[in-house]
Amino acid sequence: MATGLITLTTDFGTRDAYVGAMKGVIASIAPKARVIDVSHEVPPQQILFGAFVLHGVWAYYPEGTIHVAVVDPGVGSNRSIILARYAGRYLIAPDNGLATMVHRHFPIEEAYVVENRSLFLPRPSSTFHGRDIMAPVAAHLANGLKPARVGRACERIELLPIEFRGTVKNDGVHGRVIYVDRFGNLVTNVRLDDLGPLQRIRNSLHVHVDGRDIGPLRHAYHEVKPATPLALVGSSGFIEIAVNCGSAVGQFPADARVRIDSTQKESASPGAGS
Amino acid sequence: MATGLITLTTDFGTRDAYVGAMKGVIASIAPKARVIDVSHEVPPQQILFGAFVLHGVWAYYPEGTIHVAVVDPGVGSNRSIILARYAGRYLIAPDNGLATMVHRHFPIEEAYVVENRSLFLPRPSSTFHGRDIMAPVAAHLANGLKPARVGRACERIELLPIEFRGTVKNDGVHGRVIYVDRFGNLVTNVRLDDLGPLQRIRNSLHVHVDGRDIGPLRHAYHEVKPATPLALVGSSGFIEIAVNCGSAVGQFPADARVRIDSTQKESASPGAGS
Amino acid sequence: MATGLITLTTDFGTRDAYVGAMKGVIASIAPKARVIDVSHEVPPQQILFGAFVLHGVWAYYPEGTIHVAVVDPGVGSNRSIILARYAGRYLIAPDNGLATMVHRHFPIEEAYVVENRSLFLPRPSSTFHGRDIMAPVAAHLANGLKPARVGRACERIELLPIEFRGTVKNDGVHGRVIYVDRFGNLVTNVRLDDLGPLQRIRNSLHVHVDGRDIGPLRHAYHEVKPATPLALVGSSGFIEIAVNCGSAVGQFPADARVRIDSTQKESASPGAGS
Repeated sequence: MATGLITLTTDFGTRDAYVGAMKGVIASIAPKARVIDVSHEVPPQQILFGAFVLHGVWAYYPEGTIHVAVVDPGVGSNRSIILARYAGRYLIAPDNGLATMVHRHFPIEEAYVVENRSLFLPRPSSTFHGRDIMAPVAAHLANGLKPARVGRACERIELLPIEFRGTVKNDGVHGRVIYVDRFGNLVTNVRLDDLGPLQRIRNSLHVHVDGRDIGPLRHAYHEVKPATPLALVGSSGFIEIAVNCGSAVGQFPADARVRIDSTQKESASPGAGS
Repeated sequence: MATGLITLTTDFGTRDAYVGAMKGVIASIAPKARVIDVSHEVPPQQILFGAFVLHGVWAYYPEGTIHVAVVDPGVGSNRSIILARYAGRYLIAPDNGLATMVHRHFPIEEAYVVENRSLFLPRPSSTFHGRDIMAPVAAHLANGLKPARVGRACERIELLPIEFRGTVKNDGVHGRVIYVDRFGNLVTNVRLDDLGPLQRIRNSLHVHVDGRDIGPLRHAYHEVKPATPLALVGSSGFIEIAVNCGSAVGQFPADARVRIDSTQKESASPGAGS
Repeated sequence: MATGLITLTTDFGTRDAYVGAMKGVIASIAPKARVIDVSHEVPPQQILFGAFVLHGVWAYYPEGTIHVAVVDPGVGSNRSIILARYAGRYLIAPDNGLATMVHRHFPIEEAYVVENRSLFLPRPSSTFHGRDIMAPVAAHLANGLKPARVGRACERIELLPIEFRGTVKNDGVHGRVIYVDRFGNLVTNVRLDDLGPLQRIRNSLHVHVDGRDIGPLRHAYHEVKPATPLALVGSSGFIEIAVNCGSAVGQFPADARVRIDSTQKESASPGAGS
């Protein structure tokens, strides 16, 4: 059952009228719904970025929350809009891969194609379905509409072809950077769980970034000197590359590859790794 | 009758304490009012930009909504502050042209000069009327104050000297870009209505941007190949110049002129237009 | 007694999931609490900037408001988190100097070290105490928790070693720029009060910025010609250096020193000052 809590995650920025118009539509249809901004600074049309942001907030909202996500380069084409429930929270989004990270990490419980035009604004535009379709549908759900009323069951959710977790190989666990945050932390697709038995010897691990050994998995930034790189399990649960009191961007490329092993034979000097 | 819903549109940005102080003033006077951010990223002192943002959200909010807009290069001078009702929604803003686009497109129903100092914060500053005058007046309205209580009737609203719609000439309908959005879409002052009889032969139209023919009015971005320019009726109701999966900024100047005609004699090759 | 009003001031930006996650935590624990964004654009790890923003909103919020501030380069180290009440409003923040400006200008009424782990999220991370500790503690306070329940009394609040007010010397009152706002106004640490007897001869004052005389304290920007620098008492109560219809950044360094005197012997020509 949906609550009256709606969140917004978009690539609209906060400069133009787009987000404000969506909020007006929601306020008009569901005056008691509460709207929370998650992010409107998803870089334009970067679906993976949006997918990652959704994953980062998913479990922290109460069940019944309605998350609306609009990163929608295919607006006006024949891509669908979906309503799906994962772990008790709802997602309304274009069916273009925005669900990927949530889909991989939380159980799906129901899913529909949003196609009941009686729920849309009259004469929806072909360029702004966030305002004309997704906002009103979210508002109706917040008002108590049954999810199944939005359209037929959705058989298959579109997912991005990304490796969403680390890969175990002979020479360690491999992964890559999939997200760069505001502080310049490079977030990889490797979770602590992905390390398998290596977790038990955490203190002897070595994290290699594009071949450079940056030492073991740390617990906090201050464990290394200022301006020094380190690896730790970030707040999102993924291993990330950071620089204490600084930014890892510039020290490492935004698409860096990581390898985590427990052997001691790798030199710790920069550039001497695999 | 005002509802308890207040929106904010400013050029204050979200870095400093300015917006937070306005919200605190509202929360202190009208604890039950709900405040929605429309935009705080109006470029500093760009009144037309703010006027366009207001227009873009106006009709999407419920009647009774109180829209506060602060782009106020003349703060502390003798410019007035106005309270005006257009199509059932209220605007509180400096009387410097911020009302222009809403004024041109929605009926005005009442207007007052805000001058009842008993509604202001004590000892208002001469540099921040958003916090010291407009926020408290909005809060009092949200609490049920009658609009006429803010001051004497306003006889005339200040408007920007812009052409707010397309101009019909012998060789087609002329307009110009008046707004560039976050995605790099160039929004013109021409609405579909302005095309008159040309609307009926929409498929044979040609849109010329600074003389370059970019084809007919499209319905959606994906109708042209990626990186290709197109014209369509944007979500704001104005004709805009876009680039599929890209930005029109860089391909066209931000003050480009457009001409829309239906003759077939114009060459479709770039640069061969008027 | 805390109200259900919580504000957020952070250096998290609004691009990533960080702020959204904090809001989700609050919504989960205190569904009726209202959350207001003050600023998430504090430059990364700039504690003084955050301290100044907090000061700028403090008195404008109703008593009982819970202000959460997270600029936290020492997260995961042994720095404490504090809950302090100043002039009836609560601050929850890392004990790293964020309280400095509020502490200097408002009376402290009670203060505790936040250490009651039963109030935290389970297994708090070592990199995101905003989400795992400060947000849930704020939510519990909004639900009515007594402040003393968060931990033992705090004996001493960490303060930044800054001069928070102007210094009276033989040749006038000295201060320096401590904050640059979005408009390029340079805000100094000198308040009108700091001028002492000079306040009474305000019209004969001269404000010198790095030795350049920019004239008396003005009341509003428009008192000088466009593009001309001026000094006035800004909306925060501090004397600031501005440029009418422009930005003072570029005309003066961001760490400029100011001197205010009332003698007429200084030449008004640029560069001829002290």
